[in-house]
This record gives sequence, structure tokens and C-alpha cells, in this order.
Amino acid sequence: MSENTFKTDGTIDSFPNRFPDRDYLIQFSAPEFTSVCPMTGQPDFGAITVTYSPGDRCIELRSFKFYLQTFRDRGIFYEDVVNTILDDIVAAISPAFAEVQGEFNTRGGISATITASYPDQ
Amino acid sequence: MSENTFKTDGTIDSFPNRFPDRDYLIQFSAPEFTSVCPMTGQPDFGAITVTYSPGDRCIELRSFKFYLQTFRDRGIFYEDVVNTILDDIVAAISPAFAEVQGEFNTRGGISATITASYPDQ
Amino acid sequence: MSENTFKTDGTIDSFPNRFPDRDYLIQFSAPEFTSVCPMTGQPDFGAITVTYSPGDRCIELRSFKFYLQTFRDRGIFYEDVVNTILDDIVAAISPAFAEVQGEFNTRGGISATITASYPDQ
Amino acid sequence: MSENTFKTDGTIDSFPNRFPDRDYLIQFSAPEFTSVCPMTGQPDFGAITVTYSPGDRCIELRSFKFYLQTFRDRGIFYEDVVNTILDDIVAAISPAFAEVQGEFNTRGGISATITASYPDQ
Amino acid sequence: MSENTFKTDGTIDSFPNRFPDRDYLIQFSAPEFTSVCPMTGQPDFGAITVTYSPGDRCIELRSFKFYLQTFRDRGIFYEDVVNTILDDIVAAISPAFAEVQGEFNTRGGISATITASYPDQ
Amino acid sequence: MSENTFKTDGTIDSFPNRFPDRDYLIQFSAPEFTSVCPMTGQPDFGAITVTYSPGDRCIELRSFKFYLQTFRDRGIFYEDVVNTILDDIVAAISPAFAEVQGEFNTRGGISATITASYPDQ
Amino acid sequence: MSENTFKTDGTIDSFPNRFPDRDYLIQFSAPEFTSVCPMTGQPDFGAITVTYSPGDRCIELRSFKFYLQTFRDRGIFYEDVVNTILDDIVAAISPAFAEVQGEFNTRGGISATITASYPDQ
Amino acid sequence: MSENTFKTDGTIDSFPNRFPDRDYLIQFSAPEFTSVCPMTGQPDFGAITVTYSPGDRCIELRSFKFYLQTFRDRGIFYEDVVNTILDDIVAAISPAFAEVQGEFNTRGGISATITASYPDQ
Amino acid sequence: MSENTFKTDGTIDSFPNRFPDRDYLIQFSAPEFTSVCPMTGQPDFGAITVTYSPGDRCIELRSFKFYLQTFRDRGIFYEDVVNTILDDIVAAISPAFAEVQGEFNTRGGISATITASYPDQ
Amino acid sequence: MSENTFKTDGTIDSFPNRFPDRDYLIQFSAPEFTSVCPMTGQPDFGAITVTYSPGDRCIELRSFKFYLQTFRDRGIFYEDVVNTILDDIVAAISPAFAEVQGEFNTRGGISATITASYPDQ
Repeated sequence: MSENTFKTDGTIDSFPNRFPDRDYLIQFSAPEFTSVCPMTGQPDFGAITVTYSPGDRCIELRSFKFYLQTFRDRGIFYEDVVNTILDDIVAAISPAFAEVQGEFNTRGGISATITASYPDQ
Repeated sequence: MSENTFKTDGTIDSFPNRFPDRDYLIQFSAPEFTSVCPMTGQPDFGAITVTYSPGDRCIELRSFKFYLQTFRDRGIFYEDVVNTILDDIVAAISPAFAEVQGEFNTRGGISATITASYPDQ
Repeated sequence: MSENTFKTDGTIDSFPNRFPDRDYLIQFSAPEFTSVCPMTGQPDFGAITVTYSPGDRCIELRSFKFYLQTFRDRGIFYEDVVNTILDDIVAAISPAFAEVQGEFNTRGGISATITASYPDQ
Repeated sequence: MSENTFKTDGTIDSFPNRFPDRDYLIQFSAPEFTSVCPMTGQPDFGAITVTYSPGDRCIELRSFKFYLQTFRDRGIFYEDVVNTILDDIVAAISPAFAEVQGEFNTRGGISATITASYPDQ
Repeated sequence: MSENTFKTDGTIDSFPNRFPDRDYLIQFSAPEFTSVCPMTGQPDFGAITVTYSPGDRCIELRSFKFYLQTFRDRGIFYEDVVNTILDDIVAAISPAFAEVQGEFNTRGGISATITASYPDQ
Repeated sequence: MSENTFKTDGTIDSFPNRFPDRDYLIQFSAPEFTSVCPMTGQPDFGAITVTYSPGDRCIELRSFKFYLQTFRDRGIFYEDVVNTILDDIVAAISPAFAEVQGEFNTRGGISATITASYPDQ
Repeated sequence: MSENTFKTDGTIDSFPNRFPDRDYLIQFSAPEFTSVCPMTGQPDFGAITVTYSPGDRCIELRSFKFYLQTFRDRGIFYEDVVNTILDDIVAAISPAFAEVQGEFNTRGGISATITASYPDQ
Repeated sequence: MSENTFKTDGTIDSFPNRFPDRDYLIQFSAPEFTSVCPMTGQPDFGAITVTYSPGDRCIELRSFKFYLQTFRDRGIFYEDVVNTILDDIVAAISPAFAEVQGEFNTRGGISATITASYPDQ
Repeated sequence: MSENTFKTDGTIDSFPNRFPDRDYLIQFSAPEFTSVCPMTGQPDFGAITVTYSPGDRCIELRSFKFYLQTFRDRGIFYEDVVNTILDDIVAAISPAFAEVQGEFNTRGGISATITASYPDQ
Repeated sequence: MSENTFKTDGTIDSFPNRFPDRDYLIQFSAPEFTSVCPMTGQPDFGAITVTYSPGDRCIELRSFKFYLQTFRDRGIFYEDVVNTILDDIVAAISPAFAEVQGEFNTRGGISATITASYPDQ
């Protein structure tokens, strides 16, 4: 049963929302995100915050940890990190609402924060 | 009289709202919340914040402390902690408005915050 | 003249609002509030914040300090502290708007914040 | 030309707004404000924050520094400080919007914040 | 291809927005901004924050770093810094929304923050 | 037995040190201290921190709470508060070392911290 | 081999110090400590910090997590928590130096910090 | 008697040290210090911290407030502020030890802290 | 010449100390350190701080960035990370003094800090 | 006279120490330091803190501001910035003691702090 096991293959696992009649918010903060800059090959670091209102299913937290680790060796731009995570969450759990924010550490004296939400505000 | 005694059996006690004609807010912050993860049996830690606007009755604060302690040895998911506390408050005092927020400590590099309110926003 | 003298008997003194045609805000923060718990006889501590928009008269700040000191030896619940101060301010100066917030220190691992306003929001 | 010189006589100098078609905000924060309490003759200390949207003219920052210094030896109540600065700014530059906030240091265990805006909100 | 190379001549380079159907936000924070005061010739220091919602193109981050460096030896007023950066961003990428905020360090005991946005709020 | 009961009469109760052969440190921080200014009759507020190395006996924490409350209606100077608490602790438990620090809130724009220790450093 | 497995029975497991010729420091901070007050039966909360210089063996971190969990249902005074942990560490790994500090949350308006070290300072 | 009255003429008043046999520390922090720059005539702002160990007499706190106000209209360099206060304290109470620290606000992007003690360290 | 080029192969490059007669300190802080837990295969995150007093040669900062990246895919215990970095620095530049501190993020509710120095203190 | 004028040519001006018999400390903090990286030509940013005990002469603060600005267009390594400033201070005022600390902003995820003092510690 998905509540007592969870996927470790990098896909986002889910479990049934036990309070489907209530419009509530769940937020995960993952300050240990890392990926690779596709232009320089250097590691990028940042924090990913996901906020969503569940529909029929909720994100399984530990499978989500493994999902975020799939970015560790992946060359990807900041904008794509945030939009890809949002697309994957929408595909996995069809939430009523979801927002993904990536706060990326300073490079060349400039830091960047990208925020995308579903459905469009 | 409920104002000078209070329940210690883990149920939420209440006392009459002495200002029923005013729509005011009461907030309790309990940073010493702990329960047990139903999957691993390991303790979980977090902070519970309750914000409500009283109807005819108010939550008795010390009975609420004992109520929160009933979660100490209970295996329960984060989402269920927050929604269960909200359901129990609504049942105990029929508030005009109530919100429960649980901020749970980092596990596997990810922290979680769940927020539910009554009636639905 | 009330601007150069002020009451020290524990009543809220006032002076004429010199800008009655402007809808502006005045906020007092008093972090040294203390009263007595009516159930245990133990001292309670907290901070009182008053925000108001004056009508014809403003609160005289030093008389308000003496007013707050009348709670020092008084057995009173948190909810009553906040609602009583709000009632006394409304009676003293008939403000266009007033809000009183009491933030009370941790007892039994739980802190409490009560917020009431006039007229009802 | 007023852009390369500025008044030091305590009046608020101004220069032409070079972006009159854009509705933008300018904020000055002056944490070194001091005046004199008209009742006790003791010095008062606080911070003045001015936020405005310019019309045809902008406040010249250094003349504004000298303007704030005119309060140094002046006996004046908190409410009058904030409302007087607002009146003087409106008279000097006819802004589209202006707000003045004075945050005054603790006296007798109570601090005060006064906020006034033009036109009335 | 503009994603793997970028301009270093002080113009704002751009790359195609890969998520043109989503209305998302990108924010850059550059705390190492410096220019020259046109009246005194002394260096000014501050932080520039750009927030925008991309249209067809996004700002290339490293070209933007070089763009900000063009202000290093330039005599320019605070208001002009912010409005000029906003104009240059609008010209370079025609964003759906853009806001530029400049927070400039204390001079003569007063700090200044200028905020402009496109289109006008 | 003194470990399961404690005095509430305002004297400092103690219990046997179960680790008399180890030179360890115990620190209590009491941020809710209040007394009365002997010159003005106005309440004073502050925080008392006690650090000691026990000899044969340790301070019973709840009796110490009641002990500190005996200062609530007492007219006493800052210097006397700190030195009196130190004297009373030394008399009650004969510690190997003890330090008392009182940090008193701002009055007239000046805060005060008094620190005394036994034996003299 | 103890490096790839660890005890979960509440005893402190260890592994060989691979740098026995260097006098270095290891510090663990465990902010989620909880035990039970032996007088009231109420839960206590605090943070335990262990600092030690290893001899031939180091503390296995996950076994130490299970060790700290053995205090969860145990009625024990603050002083005993800290001295017991220190004794158990010394018995388990014979360190060159060890210090245990327990910072316990506010009860009755007073917080407590206990610090013990081996060998005696 | 000097304990119930105090000088307001700008001299440092004192009262007898009631614990002359104990070597304890008294610290005053005055964050509202202001004087005048002797070169520009512009106001300077800063914080003065006095730490001393009393001999036969202690500094009377309210007379010290009036003493610090004598600098309000005085043209004086930072170094002279700190050394003059130290000299005046030594002359007034012959302390066993005294240190004066002045932390002066940013001017031209540089802040300054001056620290002098008696007797020389 | 090593001052204008630097190694990117993961070895620590160095350049001549231009002030060999002065005993000064250099500190690098690298908050984006990541390695892999050898027991679970999960990523670890932390901050590495290096403090050293140079002998004849200094660490080249960008080669050190590439050196730290060699730990990204390496299974290694916390204690070994810190002691290995210290050994590699000593081998590369023979410093007069060097200290390496690793502060590793919370795992299972416990964070760890390891500090080693050369020569032994 | 050097107290009422000061050099703006980038040399460190000084004035006579009026308290030559007292061994006191003067600290300047300059958080707006900028120079140029000699390898990349990119601007570097940081904060310079100077702490010294004067001999016969003190550093004139405004000439020191102009002195620090001479680094603005200068290609120079971090280590050289700090040691050069220390050498120039020693040459200008022959202090009893001087320390210079440069804290340089993050580059490539690593920040650097260099500290040098005279005479050698």
C-alpha cells in the first residue's frame, strides 16, 4: 500500500487525500537542492518550495526527496528546474492548486528566484 | 465551574465567550508538539498554531495542552494531525472561524507545513 | 490644560486631535504588561499593542501607562484583558477605529495572542 | 540649477521629476531623527520614513536632511511631527501620493508609531 | 546560440522563454551595485532587484551582470538608475510585467529606496 | 521529600546534588522579573540569569520562581536586586561558584546590566 | 562491521577513530530532545549538544539518535539528563574530552541550561 | 539624600556603593547619544556603553542621562567624546575599573567605534 | 604563472605568499559542500570553513572550489571529510597553521560539526 | 590645521592623538569596499575593518574614505588588499597596534576573510 511503502526510482509517488472535501494547503521546503549548470558544468545550489492544495491525491514526501535527487547530475537552467517540477507535480497528483518556487544561490554577485503556479494566476 | 477547573483527560474543554457580540481572534502557538511517524515508528516534532474567532464558547488553554499531549504516542501522518485537530476544535466549540497550522521539522532534508481552516476559504 | 498635565489615577486621559480632518493611525506598543492569573494567582506577562485612528481626541500616552499599571495586581483572563482595554479606549476617546492586541508569554509550552477591534471588522 | 545645488536653510528643496509619465515610488528612511518633548524639555528620538509618488517635482534629499534637522531644538508632540512633515512635503512638491511614518523610541516602557498619508486613504 | 554564449558588451542579452504559455515570475537580486553621484563624484552603493514576468524572451543573467557594471563609472541620480534599468529591460525583452527596485545605502543619515514598474500599476 | 514537593513561601528551596564529585554548571534564565523603583514607585522590568556550580545542594527551580516573585511589590534599586539574589543563593546552597546578572529594561533611554559573582573573581 | 550497521536498541554504538593521532572535536546538536518531568508527569522539551574529542572510538550518530529516544518516556530531572548522558558517553567510547549541554525550554517563566564535562575542568 | 534626589545640571551624581566588598560590574547602554561634528556643524549620532566596577560610589543613572545630554549641542570629535566621558566618570566616582565605548553611526560609508578604559589595560 | 591560471583537475593549486614575514590569517567559507553518505548512498550537505596562516604558499581559491567538488560523488563519512581536507591542505601548502571545520545539515534530527587543526592544539 | 581640513588625494591623513598616555582602541568599518580582480577584470566587493591603538597620531576618517576609493579601479588580490592597507596605515601613523580585516563577498560559492595585524601577534 502506498502509505507504507514509497517509490525510490525518482518518480513522484502519491497517496489518497483523506480530507478531499476540505481545501487545505501543504507546503514542502527543500533547502538542499542541487543541479548542474548546462553552460559551465558547474554545480548550482538552491532551495525548492512547493505549495499545493490537494485534489484526490497527496505527494508522498519521501518519494519526492528521491525525485529532487534526480536533478543532482542534470544540466538544467533555473527556469526549467521550476517549470519542470511544477509540470511533474501536476501530472502526478492533479492538484487544485500548486506553486513551485526555486531560490538559487548567488552567482557572479546575483541571486535568482523563479516562481510558477498552476493554474495560471 | 469550567473557568476555575479544566479537563486533563485529553478532551478539549471550553468556557463561555464573555464577548459574544464582538468578532475577535484568539491564537495559540504550541512549539512543543510531538507525535510518531506511522511508517517508521520514529518520533516527529513540530509546532501547532491555532487561530480562531469564538462563537459562544472559547477553548480552555490548559485542557488544550493535555489534548495536544494525546498525540505524543500516536502514529499519525502530518496531514491527519492538522485536519484532526481542526475537526476536534470545530466539534468542541463551533467557532465562527478556525485555522490550524502544523509546521513539522526537517526529515530527509525537507520540512513540511500543513494549513487547514474552517469553514473552507 | 490636558496637554501639559495628565492623569495618574489609572483612567485614560485624552487631548484634542489637532488634525481631525485627516484619517491617520497611532500605535502604542507596551511590552511590559503584567497581570495576575485568576485561577492560579501567578503573574502573567505579555505585550499590549494599541492601534487607533483618532476622532476628536487622542490618548494621552503617560496616563495610558498608569492605566496599564492598574492590571498589575488584578486577576483577569487573557481574553478579558484585551476586550476590556478596547472597551475602555472606545469609552475614553470614541475613535474612528481601534484595535488591541495582547501577546501573552508561554505558559505550559503554549503562548497566546488575542486581537479585538472596534468597530467589528 | 537645483540639481547641482540645494538649500541648507531648512526648507524642502525639489528638482523636476524626469519620469513624470510613470507612477513610481520613492522612499527615504531617516533613523537619526530627534526633537524635544514640549512637556518635559527632554530630547525625543525616532525614525522618520517618507514614501511618495512624485508629481512634477521630487524631494531633493540633502535639503530634506537639513529640513529634518530643524526639529532638533523644537518642542513638538509626536502626532505633530508626523502631520507637519506631511503637510510640508505636500506644500513643497504636490505629490500624487505621500505617507509619513514616525517610529518613536520607548518612553516609560511604551513606544509609539504615527502614520499619516496624503490624500486620505 | 544565445543559451550557450552571452554578450559581455554591457547590453542586456536574452534567450527564448521556453514556457510562454505560463505567467510566471523571475527575480534577480544584485546587492553589489555601485555608481557615481553626479553632484559630488563620490561612489554610491546599493542593491538592485528586478522582478519580471517574461513574454517571448527571458533576460540572460550573465549579460545582465555586465549590463549592471556599466553603471560603475557613471554619474547618475538614484531615480534615474531605477527608471533607466526598467526602460532598458522593457526595450530588451518586452516583458508582460517588470518591476525594478533600487535600495541605496545611507548618505547623511538617510537611505533611499526607489521602485518603478511596467506597465504602470 | 524535597524533590517531590517544594516551598512556595518565597524562600529558596534546595535538593541534594546527585553528582557532587563533578564540577558542572547550572543556569536559570528568568526574563519575567519585575520589581518597583524605590524613588518613583513605578514598576521596573528585567531579566535575571543565575549561573552556578553546585556544592552539596542544588536550587529547586519552582521555589526559585516563587522567590523571584517576592520582588514584585518591593521597592529596590537595580544594584540591590542583583546583590541580594546572590547573597540569598549563597546562603541557601553554599555553591562552589555563583553569578547573578540582572538586565534591566530601558528607562530614560538608558538600559542597565549588573553582574555579581561569588566568590569574588 | 559497525560502520555499515548500527544498534537501534538504545545503547550508544561506536566505530574506530580513523585519525587517532589527531586531537579533533566532534559536536552533535539534537534540538528534538524530550523526556518526562518526574514530579508532574508532564513532558519536558529541550536541546542536547554533545562535544567530544575522540580517543580510540567515535560515537555512531544513528545509534545515538535511538539512545536519546530512550529518554522520551522516562521521568528524569534536568540535572540527571545531562550527567547521565555524559556518563554513558564516557562509558561507551572513553573520549579524551567530552561535554554535554542540555538547554531546557521555559517552564513557569524560567528556562534552564545544564553543562557538564569530562574530565572535570 | 542623594538616593532620592539627583542632579539635573549635567554633572555626574553618585550614591554610596552598598556592596563595597564585592568586585561587581555595572553596565549602562545609552543608544540615543548625539553631539555635533566640529568640522561640519552637522549632528552626529551613536551609542555610548559604560561598564564599570564601583569603588566607594556608584553612578546615579538619571543624573548620567542629563550628563550625556550636555553633548547634544557640543562640537566634539568621536575620540574626545569617549575619552572625556571616561575622564569625567573617573573624576566623579573613582571606580576600580571603567570602560567607555562609543559606536558612531555611518558617515561617508564608514562607521567608527572608540573604546577606552581605566586604568589602562 | 600560477597567479593567472589555476588547476581545475581537483588538486589544490597554490601561489607564493607575498607577505611571508607576517603571520596573518586567511579564511575560506564554502556553504555549498555536498558529498554522499557511504552507508545509505543519500547525499549529505554542509558547509566547509578553512582557516590558515600561510607559510611560503597560499591556496589558490578557484582550484580549491574544484577540489571541493571532487567530494560531490564520493561516499565518505563526516569525520573523514574534515580530516582529509586538512591533510590535503597541509600536503599542498605546508601552512604555519590550518583548521578545517565541517558543519553538516540535520539528519534524523541531529546536526554535526567536526573541527580539526594542524598542528595539534 | 589638519583637524579642520583633510586630504582628498588618496593618501591617509592624520591628526595628533590628544590622549597619548591612554592605550585605547579605534575601529573603522567600511562595508562599501570595491576593487577589481586582477585575473578576470571583474569587480570585487567586500568590507574592510580597521582596528588600531594610536601612537602620536590618529587616522583622519574622511581622508581614509578617499584612500579606500583608490582601490576602486585597481586590479589587486584579496591578500594584497589587506596587507597593503595595513602597511599604509603603519607608514602613516606608526600605531601601537593595528589590525586590518577584509571580508570579501562570495565568488564561486566561496567567501574569503583575510586578517593581518601589526606588530605580528
